[in-house]
Amino acid sequence: MKRVKITDHFWRKRIDIIRDEVIPYQWEALNDRIPDAPASHAMKNFKIAAGEESGEFFGFVFQDSDVGKWLEAVAYSLENDPDPELEKTADEVIELIGRAQQDDGYLNTYFTIKEPQLKWRNLRDKHEMYVAGHMMEAAVAYFEVTGKRKLLDIMCRFADHIDEMFGKEENKLRGYDGHQEIKLALVKLYKATGNERYLQLSKYFIDERGQQPHYFDLEKKARNDDKEFWWHDEYGDYSYHQAHLPVRDQKEAIGHAVRAMYMYTAMADLAIETGDHTLKEACERLWENVTNRQMYITGGVGSQDFGEAFSFDYDLPNDTCYTETCASIGLVFWAKRMLGIEKNGKYADVMERALYNGTISGMDLDGKKFFYVNPLEVWPKANEKRQDKTHVKPVRQKWYSCACCPPNLARLIASIGQYVYSVDSNQLFVHLYMGNESELDIAGQKVQIIQETNYPWDGNVQITLSPENEREFTVAVRIPGWCKLAALKVNNELVDIDCCTKNGYAYITRTWKKGDKIVLVLPMPVERVRANPKVRENVGKVSLQRGPIVYCLEEVDNGANLPNILLPKDSELEVTFQEELLGGISVITAKAERIDDQAWGNELYMTYEKDTKSITLKAIPYYAWCNRQPGEMLVWIMEK
Amino acid sequence: MKRVKITDHFWRKRIDIIRDEVIPYQWEALNDRIPDAPASHAMKNFKIAAGEESGEFFGFVFQDSDVGKWLEAVAYSLENDPDPELEKTADEVIELIGRAQQDDGYLNTYFTIKEPQLKWRNLRDKHEMYVAGHMMEAAVAYFEVTGKRKLLDIMCRFADHIDEMFGKEENKLRGYDGHQEIKLALVKLYKATGNERYLQLSKYFIDERGQQPHYFDLEKKARNDDKEFWWHDEYGDYSYHQAHLPVRDQKEAIGHAVRAMYMYTAMADLAIETGDHTLKEACERLWENVTNRQMYITGGVGSQDFGEAFSFDYDLPNDTCYTETCASIGLVFWAKRMLGIEKNGKYADVMERALYNGTISGMDLDGKKFFYVNPLEVWPKANEKRQDKTHVKPVRQKWYSCACCPPNLARLIASIGQYVYSVDSNQLFVHLYMGNESELDIAGQKVQIIQETNYPWDGNVQITLSPENEREFTVAVRIPGWCKLAALKVNNELVDIDCCTKNGYAYITRTWKKGDKIVLVLPMPVERVRANPKVRENVGKVSLQRGPIVYCLEEVDNGANLPNILLPKDSELEVTFQEELLGGISVITAKAERIDDQAWGNELYMTYEKDTKSITLKAIPYYAWCNRQPGEMLVWIMEK
Repeated sequence: MKRVKITDHFWRKRIDIIRDEVIPYQWEALNDRIPDAPASHAMKNFKIAAGEESGEFFGFVFQDSDVGKWLEAVAYSLENDPDPELEKTADEVIELIGRAQQDDGYLNTYFTIKEPQLKWRNLRDKHEMYVAGHMMEAAVAYFEVTGKRKLLDIMCRFADHIDEMFGKEENKLRGYDGHQEIKLALVKLYKATGNERYLQLSKYFIDERGQQPHYFDLEKKARNDDKEFWWHDEYGDYSYHQAHLPVRDQKEAIGHAVRAMYMYTAMADLAIETGDHTLKEACERLWENVTNRQMYITGGVGSQDFGEAFSFDYDLPNDTCYTETCASIGLVFWAKRMLGIEKNGKYADVMERALYNGTISGMDLDGKKFFYVNPLEVWPKANEKRQDKTHVKPVRQKWYSCACCPPNLARLIASIGQYVYSVDSNQLFVHLYMGNESELDIAGQKVQIIQETNYPWDGNVQITLSPENEREFTVAVRIPGWCKLAALKVNNELVDIDCCTKNGYAYITRTWKKGDKIVLVLPMPVERVRANPKVRENVGKVSLQRGPIVYCLEEVDNGANLPNILLPKDSELEVTFQEELLGGISVITAKAERIDDQAWGNELYMTYEKDTKSITLKAIPYYAWCNRQPGEMLVWIMEK
Repeated sequence: MKRVKITDHFWRKRIDIIRDEVIPYQWEALNDRIPDAPASHAMKNFKIAAGEESGEFFGFVFQDSDVGKWLEAVAYSLENDPDPELEKTADEVIELIGRAQQDDGYLNTYFTIKEPQLKWRNLRDKHEMYVAGHMMEAAVAYFEVTGKRKLLDIMCRFADHIDEMFGKEENKLRGYDGHQEIKLALVKLYKATGNERYLQLSKYFIDERGQQPHYFDLEKKARNDDKEFWWHDEYGDYSYHQAHLPVRDQKEAIGHAVRAMYMYTAMADLAIETGDHTLKEACERLWENVTNRQMYITGGVGSQDFGEAFSFDYDLPNDTCYTETCASIGLVFWAKRMLGIEKNGKYADVMERALYNGTISGMDLDGKKFFYVNPLEVWPKANEKRQDKTHVKPVRQKWYSCACCPPNLARLIASIGQYVYSVDSNQLFVHLYMGNESELDIAGQKVQIIQETNYPWDGNVQITLSPENEREFTVAVRIPGWCKLAALKVNNELVDIDCCTKNGYAYITRTWKKGDKIVLVLPMPVERVRANPKVRENVGKVSLQRGPIVYCLEEVDNGANLPNILLPKDSELEVTFQEELLGGISVITAKAERIDDQAWGNELYMTYEKDTKSITLKAIPYYAWCNRQPGEMLVWIMEK
């Protein structure tokens, strides 16, 4: 038994927005009922595939996945807030999906309608397994929340079909997925059904990836395709798909960032489920590379537009990054699995960083507009006028024709409760701090847990534990990496935190009884964070961070030309909570200076230094930017 | 009579390199005799067009222009250093060109060989007039140096043909050039021949450009072309060609930078020749925009790869710029014309800035390799790995298939003498300082001028004037904008420089006699130049400049990761001349600091500041970078 009910002021309102705004809006979008938005056609594709409507397939080859992601978000939302009407709609969609499935289990409206003869001919590009993966994730979520097996059965049939098609056996194609989504989905399907074949299929896909002769070359030849693949680097053609080397030989993150995150997530899943040490070590190596060399301070990953991809170590430009919302979401998925491999605060720190910054920045405070790309520096004129910056939108957009980020964020937020705790037999781990009322099985006991906090604005957390019966077990509370002076009490008695802390978790083993209280105090001074000097973009600059929240400057608060603001090293950073601003945020203000560009007049280059003028700088949480007048935004501030 | 013989140690060796390396190399290239280099086919195209060889046209639509530029460089080189054999080769090329000309005067091997039916059907893209312009410039240069009219006559016939084809008259096409090269070439042709029709034709092209209905639209429709033009902005389709508005309505530089420079040059030419005030004002406005808002400190222009183009005011990224060698050369052309409109040191300052930095950086010290793009910051790994930086090559290339920059630089350097002086009836203007022995007509007198200097390494200049007879006239010597404490003597007597200086020129009016000596002392301390704070890239940074020379750091001298070097505000900047280094240069050294990235270890973000270590920074002239081991380069240095 496991139930986490989020009561948190910060996350609960986001869950409500997903329920009240995002899910209904996306339903309208899937049904092409949003005026002025690009058509989705996703529901219509299913109806055509089911033979219930006439017409042509329309949309991307992976259009079906939008329906899968929507269903998955619906499932989590129903867990948070039952809604019979919504459930009925979802059931109907699932019935339709069932009718669109082919007799052999195959399910993909693009190929069913448009190119039936080309099924499984181009795994590299055509996303059949990607779509299957999202449908599987939806199926598992819907089954776990509602107990209904319909979609689960549909997807098991499809998984069985895929398992019959692909593998090392002579009668099978020795292929594997282009986009790695299916790998983690198969592990979920295995865990939901207990069917080992799905785990083995995921393992086969992971093991086979990047082996020679390269399957993508073989299938390319088989379809007489002699076009050069658009991505090519020192590893050849397939590092875009992380298929340039066998996964255990991969040492640095490369290629499309979302694919990478999904694949590393599946690798960690398989390391946990199969105990494969070589996969565990590959995951740890890749984790070090990503988080210590290729990750933005917001938890964003993907430094370049080309291929929506990683570039190379320490290349972290703030204004030309890609940092897709989905990639940060994938980083959260991966971090959760790494915590499954090892309880180490470094994983939870990154998970928290991405959650409070680079993921939720993808949505406006009303849940109506979305960023694909989450830049750390915006100069709207450059995004308008420079071709190499047009991928960065200075304002969130309503709905994208390639609609991956909004539903991905919806499913993440609706399932945020899954990230708070984990239980290892008789150990309860508290990874995240947010208000919730939960019931977990620990050491064979049903334990009620009430977490109360005003996080992320305040670092005081109270956790009340109520086991059914008194029982000895361990509670391990995370001491965030950003916190230098944590204090911990159990039933008002101070715990020596240094003694009991290991790898970022403070372990408290005792006999717990009803109403026992853990109080954690995490002081949150504003910190000036500096980047490793190998990150050229950020030399001489600081980023302001308070608790898990990364701050930024906006033009609406600070005027135009943010890069000419200088923050003196001794300037005090003051914090005030502003209830009415941007949904309630802690604002940072500080005395700062600004190079007086008026004084420069018309000169472009001069040999003497001009005056600065005193200003008061105002910083807001990064995630909340672009919810007022559009304009410039800046995370890394020049220090003086 | 006018003759400037360059004796300067700095420029003379570059002139020699053009003569000994570049011109012979390019001749081999034009004849496809360079192993491993892309074929040019340029000479072969002429032979095929003349009916003397069989085969297909090969190369760009503007391939002929390479021959034109080569001939122009040959002409100037013959002026510097007569060479009967080279002149014979050039004469033969000219004969061939004559044989390739069609009966009606038309001359363009692409259309003659490949698409005769499409002549003049696509002025926007097909470069017919661009090629004509370069041939005209060659014709004028060759005529002026050798007195031979053959090529001049060929090009006059072609100009007559163009004049018959285009104009406002009913029987003519109301078209104009896509690339504006021909506009300035026609003014040269007019000045060489005295034929007013060529001036009027240039004026017609300038006046007609950007008028509605837009000719590029009309011709597009006429050829049933419904493809969208690849460039589009708020002005519509044609700002790439500076044809978005009538030229007199243009207020900011936009579009392809080389085209812009050539057009502004022609506008200034026409303002001078026709006395058109509206053109003069447009030129002045555009000059202010370019030099005060869109010019790099190296005299480079063109901030973006897309369209090799200007972007917008104060957008001057150091690592993604285009700053094409040809664009800086075009800026030199334009500056020279602006000095024709008004003797103002600001024009000569920019001319000098471009000459000593952004133009000659385009060639290595041996004249064997060339940059198209002249970046101000290079991180070779990023140029290799990031799609948005691959246009910046971290090392010079041997020869480009679109070979515009090397021959353009060849003709500029070979004709550098034309930029040193100008004479306005009884006033001699000295714009540039370089050793030369010259003979000019001033106030009806033949005056011998000997200039001696060790510029740009030393600011002492001695000018000895010897008029045939004693005569009163004015000598105006430029006081460079970078110089704050110039001193001036005539025959060892100090001149009150403040009294006699106007707009950057010190005017000395007296009766000059044989052997009179002007001594100008221009102290050259190293200056820390700062950029207008509206240039975001350069906030907190300085560029080192000494005299006209902009400096840079190279990895070979300073180790990798140049952006983490901090130059303290009070650090003394020492200069030593190193005879053996990079052809003899003044080197700047200074005590500086470097953020110790070893101390950071593996951390990507930390809340406290790490130590710096002391280093000695070494800066070399920007133009000389990338003549040793390849590596990083940086112009703008972080100040501490």
